Amino acid sequence: MKTFILALATLFALASFARAADDMPAFQPGNRILFQGDSITHGGRGTDPNHFMGHGYQYIIAAKYGTFYPERKLLFLNRGISGDTVAKLQARWKTDTLDLKPDLLSILIGINDMHQGVSAAQYEAGYDRLLTATVAALPKVRLVLGEPFGLPVARRKEGWEKERIELQARQVIVARLGLKYHAPVVHYQKAFDDACRRAPAEYWIWDGVHPTYSGHQIMADEWVHTVEAAWKPVEPVGR
Amino acid sequence: MKTFILALATLFALASFARAADDMPAFQPGNRILFQGDSITHGGRGTDPNHFMGHGYQYIIAAKYGTFYPERKLLFLNRGISGDTVAKLQARWKTDTLDLKPDLLSILIGINDMHQGVSAAQYEAGYDRLLTATVAALPKVRLVLGEPFGLPVARRKEGWEKERIELQARQVIVARLGLKYHAPVVHYQKAFDDACRRAPAEYWIWDGVHPTYSGHQIMADEWVHTVEAAWKPVEPVGR
Repeated sequence: MKTFILALATLFALASFARAADDMPAFQPGNRILFQGDSITHGGRGTDPNHFMGHGYQYIIAAKYGTFYPERKLLFLNRGISGDTVAKLQARWKTDTLDLKPDLLSILIGINDMHQGVSAAQYEAGYDRLLTATVAALPKVRLVLGEPFGLPVARRKEGWEKERIELQARQVIVARLGLKYHAPVVHYQKAFDDACRRAPAEYWIWDGVHPTYSGHQIMADEWVHTVEAAWKPVEPVGR
Repeated sequence: MKTFILALATLFALASFARAADDMPAFQPGNRILFQGDSITHGGRGTDPNHFMGHGYQYIIAAKYGTFYPERKLLFLNRGISGDTVAKLQARWKTDTLDLKPDLLSILIGINDMHQGVSAAQYEAGYDRLLTATVAALPKVRLVLGEPFGLPVARRKEGWEKERIELQARQVIVARLGLKYHAPVVHYQKAFDDACRRAPAEYWIWDGVHPTYSGHQIMADEWVHTVEAAWKPVEPVGR
């Protein structure tokens, strides 16, 4: 009986330790968390304190952590604009990013560059310049890079093999930029590929580019999982 | 040691039983889940398979369960319209609700009736007629009623005592209709009152009526909690 009580006590202690631990050290008190990108991030956003986040992964993340950590007074912001490319981000970067002084900056860009014929090399060079300017202006910013993604749906089924290869080239570039700038990369493509084992591609991304509400939950979960792990303090061994 | 292993085994068995159980029996395979109401439900919704849900509690719920149960092929719908009252719902009820044949219908209505001077008695009579027509047309529909709510923010601070009493009258009415129509009632007011112990009112409801993204997460959590419990099968005792 004594052993049983001891076992129970240990389990409860472990459980409460897990709960007490800081689950999202990437969001510190007073932090501004900014989402940048194209239509996937834009999400039909409006202007009031609910609609300014847009519909999508960024809304789900903001709602979740806004409620989880009210005492941290986090401010979530969205400056995604439909149709944007790296060049278009570059043109509005000062006003829409640097001047906002985000503590954490999440970027998802690339699918429009690809569809508009910007080569992988041009994409990489432009994105690299954008990130250099960012860390120069905001040396302490926590960067999070999302890989461009897609699925073969509707008219995208045709020519998918070629598109997939093009996409993979951009995914490799984002992974490389992530290493260069010490930024965790959110592997959306893998998350969507995995989700396709549970339901058809169009259940997650209705036109091959824009996720459904369920697809945005897949993105939010992957983002949270990646960002949680990236800034988690390493636990001392043997305690 | 034997006792320890037994205790561990029991705990793991309990934990996996909890996970294996059906967490949301209110959502059965192929179900259509319809959200009806005013601006809080409308949420600036658009038309494509992501934006048609609007920003808000209904988006968070759809994304969560769309991802949790892809094999159930649930369809979430939103027909909330800004500024709506019971009378305005009545006028579009056939096209926007009955014809859609929802399996679960969630309604949140009342704040505009109150602000436009519809008396509590008129509100109750109109809402009652709406629900009678609903169960006549859709005898198997699972109804979920949300109580109207508010918080004293900005210009609503003045005269709040009177507004709070008026609101409580509507909350009592919705509770009564819930009993009459066997519909669980989502107690949003209590959820927001509780949330105000963690952050000021305007953190959750920016103008006293419309929730922020964090406020919508409070709503979603309360909705899920209420609806989960309402259709959960009673566990046999002693097993």
